[in-house]
Amino acid sequence: MNLSHIEHLGIAVKSLDEAIPYYENVLGLKCYSVEEVPSQKVKTAFFKIGQTKLELLEATAEDSPIAKFIEKKGEGVHHVAFATNDLPAALAEAADKGVQLIDKTPRGGAEGLEIAFLHPKSTKGVLTELCFDPKK
Amino acid sequence: MNLSHIEHLGIAVKSLDEAIPYYENVLGLKCYSVEEVPSQKVKTAFFKIGQTKLELLEATAEDSPIAKFIEKKGEGVHHVAFATNDLPAALAEAADKGVQLIDKTPRGGAEGLEIAFLHPKSTKGVLTELCFDPKK
Repeated sequence: MNLSHIEHLGIAVKSLDEAIPYYENVLGLKCYSVEEVPSQKVKTAFFKIGQTKLELLEATAEDSPIAKFIEKKGEGVHHVAFATNDLPAALAEAADKGVQLIDKTPRGGAEGLEIAFLHPKSTKGVLTELCFDPKK
Repeated sequence: MNLSHIEHLGIAVKSLDEAIPYYENVLGLKCYSVEEVPSQKVKTAFFKIGQTKLELLEATAEDSPIAKFIEKKGEGVHHVAFATNDLPAALAEAADKGVQLIDKTPRGGAEGLEIAFLHPKSTKGVLTELCFDPKK
């Protein structure tokens, strides 16, 4: 699989209103986008550091995957997203090597990316996203 | 605080012998170092992807922090380490802004880095490490 860098980290937080000031005022990063994604029942806030984005995720409903994650594990890193230049090939390779795919084919993600998730049961506990940026 | 990139992700795994083949054979990354750190009761394996290292962490004792983490939360991302060019200044700024420091002064970390940890109670749930590389 040809992965170039960590595209983003997804970080589950209870409240963007509380987390954004920490990331801005303490870590010195700049929030450049806040967006609600109704299909995923989350509100997101994006930051950039080096090659990698930080995507803060706040649940917008009690049955949001982020609410369930926080209930089970507390706030923290929810998923790791790797950049690839060939997402269909990466998915085919993962499946061929026995990895359970959450998304069998690429779907649209935030910021115009094509994305797919691998199941953490197959990835040593890390919910893993693969991303392809068609603009690059 | 002047942070340039994500220096590494610390990832808690039950077994390096099981996790390394996944990272190598599925994700296509290369393990370039395996090291035991008796003081932390862990064995580590390092990979590099873009600007960032992945540091897999296996507990070597039942009372290792990694064993406790896995017992509580399962395998997954244990900490996020940011690179800074002035670690004492970053720690002073964090403390001044109310962040609880695990390490009040820099200490030696893996690969010759100077490091310090911030308490996850102050960092919205993410155990956060700050790193300075004196070789750069």
